[in-house]
This record gives sequence, structure tokens and C-alpha cells, in this order.
Amino acid sequence: MGTIIKGGRVVTASDSFEADVRIDGEKITAIGKNLEAGNGDETIDANGRWIIPGGIDPHVHLELPFMGTISKDDFDTGTQCALAGGTTTLIDFAIPPKGESMLKIIDDWDAKAKDKARCDYTYHAAVTDWNDQIAEEIPRVVKERGINSFKIFLAYYGVFGLNDDEAFRVVRAVKEAGGIVLVHAVNGNVLTAMATEMIANGQGEPIYHALSQPPEAEGEATGRIIRFTEIENGSVYIVHTTAIDALEEINAGRQRGKATVLGETCTQYFFLNQDLYELPNWEGAKYVLSPPLRPKEHSEALWKALNNHTIETIGTDHCSFDYNGQKNLKGTLPDGTPFDATKDFRFIPNGFNGIEERLMMMYTYGVKDGRISPERWVATCCTNAAKVFGLWPRKGTIAVGSDADIVLWDPDCSGTISAKTHKSAADYNVYEGYEIRGRATTTFVRGKVAYRDGEVLAEPGSGRFLKRGPFSAHSI
Amino acid sequence: MGTIIKGGRVVTASDSFEADVRIDGEKITAIGKNLEAGNGDETIDANGRWIIPGGIDPHVHLELPFMGTISKDDFDTGTQCALAGGTTTLIDFAIPPKGESMLKIIDDWDAKAKDKARCDYTYHAAVTDWNDQIAEEIPRVVKERGINSFKIFLAYYGVFGLNDDEAFRVVRAVKEAGGIVLVHAVNGNVLTAMATEMIANGQGEPIYHALSQPPEAEGEATGRIIRFTEIENGSVYIVHTTAIDALEEINAGRQRGKATVLGETCTQYFFLNQDLYELPNWEGAKYVLSPPLRPKEHSEALWKALNNHTIETIGTDHCSFDYNGQKNLKGTLPDGTPFDATKDFRFIPNGFNGIEERLMMMYTYGVKDGRISPERWVATCCTNAAKVFGLWPRKGTIAVGSDADIVLWDPDCSGTISAKTHKSAADYNVYEGYEIRGRATTTFVRGKVAYRDGEVLAEPGSGRFLKRGPFSAHSI
Amino acid sequence: MGTIIKGGRVVTASDSFEADVRIDGEKITAIGKNLEAGNGDETIDANGRWIIPGGIDPHVHLELPFMGTISKDDFDTGTQCALAGGTTTLIDFAIPPKGESMLKIIDDWDAKAKDKARCDYTYHAAVTDWNDQIAEEIPRVVKERGINSFKIFLAYYGVFGLNDDEAFRVVRAVKEAGGIVLVHAVNGNVLTAMATEMIANGQGEPIYHALSQPPEAEGEATGRIIRFTEIENGSVYIVHTTAIDALEEINAGRQRGKATVLGETCTQYFFLNQDLYELPNWEGAKYVLSPPLRPKEHSEALWKALNNHTIETIGTDHCSFDYNGQKNLKGTLPDGTPFDATKDFRFIPNGFNGIEERLMMMYTYGVKDGRISPERWVATCCTNAAKVFGLWPRKGTIAVGSDADIVLWDPDCSGTISAKTHKSAADYNVYEGYEIRGRATTTFVRGKVAYRDGEVLAEPGSGRFLKRGPFSAHSI
Amino acid sequence: MGTIIKGGRVVTASDSFEADVRIDGEKITAIGKNLEAGNGDETIDANGRWIIPGGIDPHVHLELPFMGTISKDDFDTGTQCALAGGTTTLIDFAIPPKGESMLKIIDDWDAKAKDKARCDYTYHAAVTDWNDQIAEEIPRVVKERGINSFKIFLAYYGVFGLNDDEAFRVVRAVKEAGGIVLVHAVNGNVLTAMATEMIANGQGEPIYHALSQPPEAEGEATGRIIRFTEIENGSVYIVHTTAIDALEEINAGRQRGKATVLGETCTQYFFLNQDLYELPNWEGAKYVLSPPLRPKEHSEALWKALNNHTIETIGTDHCSFDYNGQKNLKGTLPDGTPFDATKDFRFIPNGFNGIEERLMMMYTYGVKDGRISPERWVATCCTNAAKVFGLWPRKGTIAVGSDADIVLWDPDCSGTISAKTHKSAADYNVYEGYEIRGRATTTFVRGKVAYRDGEVLAEPGSGRFLKRGPFSAHSI
Repeated sequence: MGTIIKGGRVVTASDSFEADVRIDGEKITAIGKNLEAGNGDETIDANGRWIIPGGIDPHVHLELPFMGTISKDDFDTGTQCALAGGTTTLIDFAIPPKGESMLKIIDDWDAKAKDKARCDYTYHAAVTDWNDQIAEEIPRVVKERGINSFKIFLAYYGVFGLNDDEAFRVVRAVKEAGGIVLVHAVNGNVLTAMATEMIANGQGEPIYHALSQPPEAEGEATGRIIRFTEIENGSVYIVHTTAIDALEEINAGRQRGKATVLGETCTQYFFLNQDLYELPNWEGAKYVLSPPLRPKEHSEALWKALNNHTIETIGTDHCSFDYNGQKNLKGTLPDGTPFDATKDFRFIPNGFNGIEERLMMMYTYGVKDGRISPERWVATCCTNAAKVFGLWPRKGTIAVGSDADIVLWDPDCSGTISAKTHKSAADYNVYEGYEIRGRATTTFVRGKVAYRDGEVLAEPGSGRFLKRGPFSAHSI
Repeated sequence: MGTIIKGGRVVTASDSFEADVRIDGEKITAIGKNLEAGNGDETIDANGRWIIPGGIDPHVHLELPFMGTISKDDFDTGTQCALAGGTTTLIDFAIPPKGESMLKIIDDWDAKAKDKARCDYTYHAAVTDWNDQIAEEIPRVVKERGINSFKIFLAYYGVFGLNDDEAFRVVRAVKEAGGIVLVHAVNGNVLTAMATEMIANGQGEPIYHALSQPPEAEGEATGRIIRFTEIENGSVYIVHTTAIDALEEINAGRQRGKATVLGETCTQYFFLNQDLYELPNWEGAKYVLSPPLRPKEHSEALWKALNNHTIETIGTDHCSFDYNGQKNLKGTLPDGTPFDATKDFRFIPNGFNGIEERLMMMYTYGVKDGRISPERWVATCCTNAAKVFGLWPRKGTIAVGSDADIVLWDPDCSGTISAKTHKSAADYNVYEGYEIRGRATTTFVRGKVAYRDGEVLAEPGSGRFLKRGPFSAHSI
Repeated sequence: MGTIIKGGRVVTASDSFEADVRIDGEKITAIGKNLEAGNGDETIDANGRWIIPGGIDPHVHLELPFMGTISKDDFDTGTQCALAGGTTTLIDFAIPPKGESMLKIIDDWDAKAKDKARCDYTYHAAVTDWNDQIAEEIPRVVKERGINSFKIFLAYYGVFGLNDDEAFRVVRAVKEAGGIVLVHAVNGNVLTAMATEMIANGQGEPIYHALSQPPEAEGEATGRIIRFTEIENGSVYIVHTTAIDALEEINAGRQRGKATVLGETCTQYFFLNQDLYELPNWEGAKYVLSPPLRPKEHSEALWKALNNHTIETIGTDHCSFDYNGQKNLKGTLPDGTPFDATKDFRFIPNGFNGIEERLMMMYTYGVKDGRISPERWVATCCTNAAKVFGLWPRKGTIAVGSDADIVLWDPDCSGTISAKTHKSAADYNVYEGYEIRGRATTTFVRGKVAYRDGEVLAEPGSGRFLKRGPFSAHSI
Repeated sequence: MGTIIKGGRVVTASDSFEADVRIDGEKITAIGKNLEAGNGDETIDANGRWIIPGGIDPHVHLELPFMGTISKDDFDTGTQCALAGGTTTLIDFAIPPKGESMLKIIDDWDAKAKDKARCDYTYHAAVTDWNDQIAEEIPRVVKERGINSFKIFLAYYGVFGLNDDEAFRVVRAVKEAGGIVLVHAVNGNVLTAMATEMIANGQGEPIYHALSQPPEAEGEATGRIIRFTEIENGSVYIVHTTAIDALEEINAGRQRGKATVLGETCTQYFFLNQDLYELPNWEGAKYVLSPPLRPKEHSEALWKALNNHTIETIGTDHCSFDYNGQKNLKGTLPDGTPFDATKDFRFIPNGFNGIEERLMMMYTYGVKDGRISPERWVATCCTNAAKVFGLWPRKGTIAVGSDADIVLWDPDCSGTISAKTHKSAADYNVYEGYEIRGRATTTFVRGKVAYRDGEVLAEPGSGRFLKRGPFSAHSI
């Protein structure tokens, strides 16, 4: 007793064609013309719909603690966003405080996720420290936990950041363990020095958040970690690339060809620009994230990079906070010093929404506006992340044997993004008012309808953790 | 009454998975687990085999006249090579003499092909002249003949070559007609000047063929045509790229992103190097083609370019001649001057075999040796050419609704390439003695077994001409 | 009986220091502290002045015929501009019509210059054709006429332009003769095709002059001739570089290091931009020259290129025409077709003033505004051209034994450029209204005061032709 | 009563000409034809000699402590090398241990130098730590001590190295103080990690010294510090550049033009290659320095970089040690662990000779072999360092008013470099057996003959410390 999706148009990273898709249990079992329904099979009409693999968002943060507050979307609302937006797998980051075991923090993340998640998920393991325990845990995380991707921060020293010695050792250890290193590539020392001075000068407004992380600081860190990886002939993945400076470095690394170099960007960097930080009434705070939004020319460069393969994946860095009550964080530091985000941008919680909007925005302004092909949209939003991180072919494609994570996509709707209708728990949406011309109408997770026409049907806890194997960083 | 290929592993440009494939008539109608055979259905065992789309060789010359001789393989033996090597579509070049109608030459090519071809085929239309007739024919070739790709030569002036004025006008006209320009990018003036001088100096041996077409002359012409295309925001495809100098230009163009820039190379440039021209006993003549084989460092750069997307397709430039009796061409020019290829490299017929060996060589030394993934092998040898030239999704993929051009590939055989066993009519093979570790065992063309275990089963004339539509040059 | 210039500050391409300079006859004979005047020596007070080598303008056109009119400044007024602006050597271009002897045209140029010139001069020999005579003349021009620099045009086919075959042969012949090739690097075929179409579309205004020669067409031709020169390991000098596209190619060539690659730009490209072509009342015609003025970002790139040695010399391409009576050229073509520049930009005489303003503009906005050092100003305006073209050390520097071509420069004056006061015969000045903060107060040519405080003292015919030797293209 | 050098050929960074040079006291007072000797003037015959400015070696280490031993040449023998080799100014490095005052260490260096130096000298101040004291001292070092150049190490953490935070703060502080930052650009963390592992693997031979500092680690650090400097629009000078990877970064920085970026290399990197580390009998240890010698292709790239201005200065990093008794250092670490350089390359004292050989080697294999012009030799060996570091025009040129630091150079001698004849105190010479075809015959320091025909005449203590001013980093 299976399900047959009839009459749609399958779109994968490589192909588009009219076909029916059959699901048995959790898997896609057949793709074909006029698949016949047997006894007990259910039939779903997909006329006029595209049948795409569920999106994979390789870069989200749910229920993330930040200086006493916690990001607004947890694995419940975050996965609701996902399903409503046509995304069926989220990759979060399990980030241990320095000194803590990675295995332990993965347990913690499991605890956060497992009763809430309504779609599948996995984590990148963040390496925030270097010591014998971490060295010993890296291969264990790969083998025992099925996590092959290790995130490092070249910023946020004292909290998450690794210095170069540590970063290089992680590059080597991860190479040996068959994993890939993800890098938050902004020079943290530059950032701290500039931000400290700005605050000392009374420059605490949101625009200074951007100015304290100039494109050069991103280009620098990107170049640095690529050269490290070249020494080891390893694999490196630059997360949330925003700047021409960084794109230059990624391309140079890809051309030298000594290492596998892959670039990710996030939806917002195509659409939102640095001038938003100067909105009146402290509205700029809504757009604070790291790296910051950049001037327009960087967005234009990203569209080119998407087509010339400098950028292979699109995430969101979704990490939402309420504008009222969270972005304007106030509190007291451990040493008793009071802080106030409205006076000091360093305390504005970083991040905003994106999980739900990613496929819609990239479809509307990418595919519909002729900037990318339907297949490139699927590749960069659904498939490539699965390949890089070892989820493929289980996830990320419409193929026989793959999980039936399927989205029926209306390729010609009209609508407007608004916080009034979004699934996120946050009180604003950075894409408020943007028109969209395509959207998910039905989302299947492992063969079950998890979302339909505005309604999330999947139960909390129905999502599963996904184990991944080593040596997956594909040439894509 | 269909055919079911059971138990194999489907490999496409994007995906690899275990599945059966069902063929009805000429089309793939289903891909699935345990597809059931109905009454009258035939079942073919593909256990241990990969099921890949038939290869597309985007660059061949069959039955090509060259100074009174004709290249050895015609549409009969050439398509036999194809089928035996796992290739099911050949793209030849219909090349009019200056002054002749493109429509007329396409008729001529049709006449050569239609009773001989054992697999499907199309042609790029060469534009070898510029005048009102050509200007008028370009959109007609697209609309009436279904040919959207136009080859120009930046060398061979007086015969095929276009000067810059003509080339630029072709770029504009083809852009308007929705086509793509293919470019033989070697500076013909440099070549002629150098070759003439070499001959005047008594330097007639095959090595001078290579030295008269230095990498700079290839880089130059590549850069030139890319800049032309940028002015028009058009699409350009550099054929048979061999040199670092040209790869630099292709990457620079892709990074600037003003035009769609695509790069092709050919099998031989990965394996065969310039030193072969210095083999004793005039054996170097076997390897004469244009652009010539290059020093080793260029081959290494090509492998990198394959993975970083500077190169998207692999052809062969197959144009075979007997070593005995053709390469050593002698004759008399129209003006009565005698010529002798053994004394003057300019008269050595250009080209050699490759159609049959392409998939095997790239599989053995690419996939098996870990330089490229199975999917990248399929992408560059089968799928991308279909996308660029408007054959996709009819050709180039294993997808529902696509032509059942399917190859059962033994991924773990052993064997040796030899002229003794090849299908080509030529009396030598440039890959003689190369070991291969994978090969086609069965090749289907539009649902029929056209080749099996060494034997070509398709009849001459069973191949069909393929019409293609405009505006197909995809971002891939 | 000599002359001692006392109390000034000598500035050369390398050095700045307080010293007196002694002149005996035509030569500098001593540079020293407190040089003592002997009997009969004249003393000139240079307190508060800089003592710089007379400027060398490597790129001027005087008395140039253009479709029945003749450029306004001849060797009389042109050399008056020079002296008033602190320039003491002009390099014009002897440009033969196709089919004519270079030796003959040099005679013609000699005839134009010798009775009029008030400062020294030489010519680049333009190669506008390729045939046995030209091939034979190139070494003779070097040896017999002392001209080692050969200009080719990659545009203006049918008039001056060389096709690639010819251009490559010139590169080779000039290399062998010990000369250097100068290149007008704009793709003439592109230009003609675009301009023809624009005119056919009724787009005859000055702005289309610019749009028909896009930066890509300049970058293309620049890259092309550099690659040609690399094949021969020769020397190439790109004249009047205007565009980022061309700067990229020059730098790439310099980095590859296979050829000696040198870049020139002209004063106007730092200051005047493409929007001037859209001035009302057909005022844009005043600014028509080739390559055209570019958008602002190209000017910014030129300033950088001046400091990083991508650009080594600054000329003017001075070729002045009256706005009233010349720019609005009307006439009849040989075939009887009437033409009217006000309707068709292709007939607007190309060029404008610059000889007088070059040093002042570069000093004011370069040195005074801190963009370049005094020594770099002297290097790029006076010395480097002498080195490249074999005038050095006779010209281009303040050194013992060099010609006493000396300028006393007021480094801190104020003034405004205006057609009311300029020495040019033309009726407008493209720098009208520009403020200047430095100027020549006295100009010596070979030891004699040729200009002082607004007055040209040198007589027509006092200037001499300068013979130059081969193999002079220095690494600078 | 002065001195007149008669009959020679003056060569400067820009000019070459026949002239006499007059010295009065310590200064050059006149350069002229047939300068007349007055009463009491001394005349020195320079027939057949070049008269060049005394060399400036911008990178030496004299009497440098290294783990209990001290580098062999002190300010006495080191300045003897200088004079014998035609160098008249040395720039050493005053390197404080972490925690110590820069002002104090400059005093210490003064104490070492002042009674021994036989030619003039200054120091770069090394910043090996960051704290309030250092921040306060930087402008004082500039103003009070006349030192405007600050060296930082991106390697040797724990000893001299600065982390990024510190390095960026130094970039900012030095920019504000009007100085320039010099950078030892090798990633110290990579180096330590690799070296530690090699030693753990029993790989203690000299070749591992090179392998633990791969070109990528040099390219990385070079790119990093350039990006830092771009943020501040400051000035940065990369010392002892050896690798293509670093040259790429320097050129990229120069092209972007946001910062003043200057590159230095050292003599040895043109001539000596990595394979020397594999000499038998531990002879490789003689060549140990940092960055290490590189494979040959890097040397070839350096010659190109010298001509295209990617490299502007040539130093030596002279830091000599005896092969017998020093290179094979043995001892005990503070914690009691014994160490033995013959077993562990990390303890081989870094460095070797070069001060004496620099001008000879670059002249012989650069000028004589036609790779660089005489003027470029003077520019890169004598003048440019003076300009960058604020010694010019006092030092580095033959100009009126400049110090009479003059070398009479025999441009056509023959000879062989050997430890038997060198002035260095060390027991071997890395250029042993190299032929030379030019050498200093007489060296003047501030007007006095300090060296003549093999004999050093200047007394210890006759050399003087040179104060330098801020804001000197010229565009050169």
C-alpha cells in the first residue's frame, strides 16, 4: 500500500521531466509514466506542480542560547518553518562551550531536538577548543555519531573561536577522520579590535556592527583557511560567504586545485544590504547577523558566483529573535557590568529568520527572474548540501531508494511574505512585503504528508536524526 | 510489451542508485525498485552493471574531406565506435566551403549520414563565411533545421576561418537567434606565420606542428572570443581546450560573469603529450591534430579544470586517418605545386580516433583512479553536452520520458586498448596498450540493443538526426 | 661661458635635492652645491622653484590630416604648448597611407616639422601595411633614421589598421630589429560593427562614439597583442590605456613575465569621464577621441595603476580641432556620399588638446593631492618615455651629460586653465576652468631659455629631430 | 679641501652617465664633467669603474643571541663584510624579549653597535608583544629614536610572534605613528604543528626544516597581513619573500591598491634551492634559514617579480653561524630537556652569510647576465630600501647633498667567492665557488675611504646610527 503522486513535473539537480512518483513506506520506489495504483494505494494529484526534493538547509541555529536569552525558534517552530517552506532537513550546529566534550553536547542537542522536530535533522559538530579530548573525539564523532562535518569559528575568541594553531590541527584531524571542515571565516581579532574601539568612541548603533566586520576581514580568514587546507589536501567549506573579497579567495583556491574548496552563502545576502542598518528608530537591529549585510555590489557578485560554481550551496543561518524583547537585550555581565544592546551593537543577538523563505525567495528572484535554472535552484538549495555532508543519496534528490522527502511546488502562485503568516515564532520577518511567485503546497517527509496548504501536519518528535558517513565531500 | 533492465545501478549526472529501468518503445518509462514485468515484457539482467545514459560526443568529424583524402571513419564505422564505447549520440560538424549555403551543406551532411548512421546524431553548423545569405540562414538553421550551435574557426583563414569582423557578427547573430557559438580558438594568423617560417627553415617534422601553435596562440583566441561575447552578453563554448593559457581565460570570463562561457576539452589532452611528436620513424605524425598535444603540465591543469567547472564537457575531435596511406599524404596543389606530408607537417591530415575510447579512458583514469566522481564522469561525458546543445532532456540522462539511450557499463573489467580490436577503420589507435578497467557491455539506442559484448547489432541507417531548439545553453 | 641655475630643488625620477645646475652649451655639465659662476657665466635664480627635466610627451599628433581637415596644432603651435607646459620633447607619429614607404613618410614628417618646431621631437613610425617593402624598411628605419618604435593600429581597418597576420609579423620583425611595438589596442572590427549598426539605428550622437568602443574591445585587443609578444619574447607598449579590462591584461602579462609589457595612459583619462558625451547642444563632440572617455571607475583604477607600475608613462594623444568649424565636419566621401559629423559621430574629428596641460594637471591632482610622489610624477611624465624609446640619458633626466632640457617649476602657484590663455590654436580647452597649483615658469631647451613667464622665446625651427638607438626598452 | 672621484660612470636607480663626483666633508657636493680640483683637494681615479651609491642591506642580524649561542658576525665583522661588498648601511633588528621595553632594547642594540660598527646602521624595531607600554612606545620610538619601521613576526609564538589581535593593533598603531610594518610572514602555528609532528616521527634532518614551512604557509601569512593593512589603508613590507604563493598575494594587494604593499626578497632565494637540504653528511644544515630555500620554480618567479615591481628590495637576512660548533648546537632547555640540532632541525641556528656577497651576486647573475638593468640593480640593492625606510635622500643615491657613501665598482672583474677570503667570521660561505664578475674596489662612507682593494680601512666605531623620520614609505 503506497502513495502515487500523479501528474507533476519532477525537478532534480540535473533533470526536469513529467512523471509520477511512487512512494512505499518511507522511500521513493518508482518514478514513471502513468504508474498504476494497486489495491490500497493512495493517489495524490500533482497537476501543475513541480515535484522537487525536500530542501536541505545546511545552516540553522535553533533554540540557541545567547547571553541569557534563547533564539526564538526551537526544533518545533523551526521545523514548522522548514515544512511550510519546502525544506525537509535541517542541519543545526552542536556547539560545546570550551572545555566541554563534543559527545556530551551532541547528547544535549539530541535532547533539544528529539521530541520537538517535525522534520529530519542532523548537526555539524562545532570544535570550539583543542585538547587531547577533542582530538580523540573527532574520529569518534564521525564513527559513533555519524557526524562528518566540523565547524570552526575564526572569530569569537574566548567563546567559540579557535586560534590558528587549533584551526590547523582541526584541519588535519578532520582530514584524517574523513570529514570536512566548515569555517566561519571572519577574522575575530580584527572584529574585536574594531568593535572595541567603536564602542569606546560612542559608536554603538547597528551600522557599526557591519563596519567592524569589513569585507577584508572576511576575505582574509577565507584565504587563510583555504591555504591551511591546501597543505593537507583536505576539504573545506566556507559558510555564509558574503563578500567579493571572499569569493576571490574561494575561486583562487578552486583554481589552484590543491584542496577541495566549497562555498556556501545564505539567502539574505542576495537581497538585503548594508544600508538597512541605518534605518531610523533602531530598526537596523533587526538585520544584525554575522557576517553582516554588505553593500549591493557584493550581492551582485553572489549571483554570478552561483552560476560559475564558486558558490555551491545556500543556507540561511536562521537564528531568530524577537525585535521587541530580544534584539534590545539588556543584562549584566558575569563581572557585574551592565550591558544594553540598544547602546552597544555587540550585545544585539545575531540572526533572524530564513528557513521558511529560502526556497521561495531563490525561486522567485532566481528561477522566475531568469538568473538561475530550475535545476541549479534544486542543486544549491536541496542536493549539493546533501552531497557535501554525506546525506546523499538518502536525502536531497528525487531518486529511487531515496527517502520520500518530496515537495509539491506551485511554480506560479502569487503571495507576499509577512510576519503575520509566517511559521516562525519571531515577531518580525526580514523579508516582510517581498512578493513571492512560487511556494510549497505539500511537503512529504519520508513518505508522509507533513505539510499541506498552510497547515503543518507532522507531529513534534516525528523528525529523525540522520547519521552520515565519512569521505562524502564530493566534487559537485 | 516493454523491456526491463533489472538489477543494475543507475548513474546520472547527479545521482547513483540501485534500480530497474523500464523501456517502452523508444522511451524510458519507469525507474524503480523491483519493476514487475508484464506479459510480453523482456527482462535484461544488469547485475553488477552500471546503467548510464548513452554518451554524447559533442565533437566528431566523420567522412571529412581533407585535401583529396577523406577521414577514415564514416557514419557507419564512426557510429560503430560510438556504440562499442557506450556513446549513443554523435555531434558532427556540417562545414560549408566559403560561399556555400549552410542549408545546402546540412543537406549534404544528411546525405552522408542517413543511410549509414547506427546511432543518433546531429551537427553543429559551421559558419565559414559572412555575407547576407549567411546572416539570413542563421535563424533559419535554428528554426527549420533544429540546429542551435554554430561553430567558427579563428584559424584556417581562406578555408574555414573567420576574421574578427565576421566572428563578432556571428556572435551577435547567433545570440539573437538563440544559439550558442562554438569556437576553434587558436590564432590562425600566428599559426600560419610560424608554420610558414618553419617550413622555410626546413623544419617539416611533426614536432613543428605543435611548436607552430603555441599555448599563447590558444589563450589569445580564447580570451578574444570571450570578450566579444561579453559585449553581447551571449553564450560561447570553447572547443578542445588544451592549454593553461586558455583555462585562465575561461575562468576569468566565468568570474566576470558577463557572458555564458563554457569549456570543452578532449580525451587525448589528459593522456597524450607533446613529446610524442618526437617519436622516431615519423611516428609522431600519428598524433598530429589541432590544437596539438601539449607538455604534461597542461594535462594536469585539465584534471583540475574538470573538477572546478572551468571545463564542463569532454569530446574527442575524432577524425581518423590511416597511418599508412593517409597521414603521409602526397599530392599536388591546385596551382601545380607538389606537396608531401612527410616533409611538411602542414599537409599531415589532422586527427585520430577517440569515439570508442572516451568513456573507457575517462572512467579508468578518472573515476577508478579517484580523480572524478562517477556523477561528474557522466555529467562531462553524457549530460552536459546535451544540456548545452538542446538535446536534453531527450538525450543525456536516465530519466522518465527521455530516449532509452542506455549503456550497461561493467565497472570492473580489465582489458587493453588496441587497433586490433577497435571498431574504427583506421590502422592504428593512439591509445594502443592503455589498460582499461571499465567498458560498455550493452548499448541501447532508443530502446533497442544496438551493441552487445563486442558486437554491433544496430543496422546502418537506424540512427536518426536530432532536431534541437534554441535558448538551451544552460548554467550547468 | 655657461649658465648656472641657482637655488632650486632638483627633482628626478629617483631623487629630489637642493642644488645648482650648470649648463655649458647644450648640456648639463654640473650639479652641485654653490656652483661658482666664472667669467661670462650667466646666473639664473631658481629660488623656490623645482628644477625638473623637460617633459616628454610620448603621444602627440600635430598637423594631422583627417578627412580633408587638418588638426589645428602644427609643429609651431604644438611646440609652443609644449614649452609653456614644461615639455621639451614631443613624439609624434609618422603615419603612412597603406602602400606608401615608411621612409618616404618620415621625410614628409621631417618637412612638416623642421621649420616649425620650437622644441625637440621624434616620431614613432606607424606600420599601416605589411609587404616586402615594409619588412625591408623596418630595420632601415631603425638604423638609418634612428626610429626604434613602431606603432600599429588594431582598429581603423582599411586606413591604418593591421589584421592579426600583419600585426604578428610586425611584432616579429620589430623584435628582430631591436625595436618596440606600440599598439592602439581597440578591436577595430567590433568598433566598426557596432558603430555601423548604431548609425543604421539613427544613433549618431557623441555618446555612441563611446558606446561603440566598449572597454571589452580594448581589453581584448590588449590581451591579444600581449600574447603575440609573449610568443616572441618581445617588447610591447600599450598606448592610451583607459579601461580596467586593459589594465587587467597588462598586469597579467607583466606577471607572466614572458614579454616586456609596458602601459601608457593619457592625462584626460584621469579627469574626464564618459558622461561628458551627453552634454547638451552637441558639446559632447568636444571630448570625442579614441579610445573614448570612460565611466569614473576606470579613472580610479588608473590612479592605482600609476602607483603599482601597471602604467609607466603618461602621454596626451594631443590632436586638437576647433569646436566651431572642425568638430562639426561636413563633406563628401570619395564615392560621392555626403557626410555630416553632427549627425554621425564617426565623422567627428578625434582628439583635443593636452600637451600644455599634462604636467600641470598631473602635478596638481597627483602630487599636490598626495596621489603620487614628485619623483613618480617626473618618472611617468618625463623619464620613463625617454627610457622606453631610446632618448635616455640624452633626454628625460637632470644628469651630467644630458641635454639641458630643464624646467623651472613653480610648485605652489595658483591659476586656472582656459582657452583664453592657452597656446593651442584650438578654440576650446577640455580642461577649461580646472584649477592648477603648479606650472612651468622657465623652460630650457638644450641650454637655451625657450619659454619664460608666459612667453615663448624659442624660434620656429629651433627644435631638432632626435635619433634613437635600438634595444632600449628598459625594465623600469 | 675635498675629494674628487674622476673618470667613472655614475649609476643611480634612475640614471647612468660619465661624471666626476666631488665630496666635501661627508657629503656629495657636486657631480660634473671635469670637475676641477682646487688647492688641497684629493683626486681619486675611477677610470673604468662604476660609481654607485653604497648598498643598503635592509635585513641583517648581527650578534644575535640564539639559544645560548650568538650569531658569528657582530657589528665589527658584519660591517667589514658590508664595506668589502660595497654596502655602507646595514639595517639590523632590535628585538626585545616579550615584556621588555622597545626603548630599552634599542639602547642595548646601540651598545652592541656603537663601538664596533665600521659603517652606518639603523634598526627596525621589532614588536614582539602588545600591551599599554608598547602602544605608548611606538610613537616615541618614531619621534625620539628616529625609527619608523616596526617588524612583527607571524611565527615564533612564545618568543617573538604576535597573534592576529596584536598584529592588527600594531598595524593600526604604526599607521597612526607614520611608520611602516615589516612582516615575517610565515604562519607560525602551521610551522609548529608540522615541525612537532615531524620530530615525533623521527624526521629531524634539515630537509624537514623546509617541509615544515611550506609555501602555502608563507602565502597565507602574506595575504593575511596585507588584508589587515588594507582595512587601515596603511603600509606593509613583506620581508624575505620566497614563494610564488606569497608573490601572488603581494601582486593582488598592489592591484587592489587599498594599502601600500611592498615586497623584499633576499639574495639567496635567487640562487640556492631546497635540494641543498638533502646534501649528505648533514651539510644541509649550512643552508637552514627561515623561510627555507624553495624549489627552483620559486627562484624563477622571483626574477620576474624583480622586473615587474612585485619585489622592490633585496636584503640578505645575514645571520651567520659556524658550521662546526654552532650549527650543530647542543644544550639543555630551561626545563632540563637536552636538545641536539643534529637530531632535531628545530635547534639548528637559522641563517648564514650574505652581506658581502649581495651586490656581487645580483650584479653577476642579474646585470651581467641581462636579467636586470644596472639601474634596477642599484634601485633594489641601494635606493629603494632608503626610500621605504626614511634614509633617503641622505642615503641610497649619488646626489648632491647626500652622504658620500660611494662605491667604486669594477664592472668587469673575475673572481670566485670563498670562505677563505670572505670577511665574515663564519667558517663557511653558502656561495662557495660561485664565480663573480663585478666587485667593489673602493668604498667610501661619508666621504672617507672605508675599504680599498681587499682591505677594510674604517675603524670600529666609525659607523653611525641613522635617525629616520616618519611617513617615508614611498611609492617607488
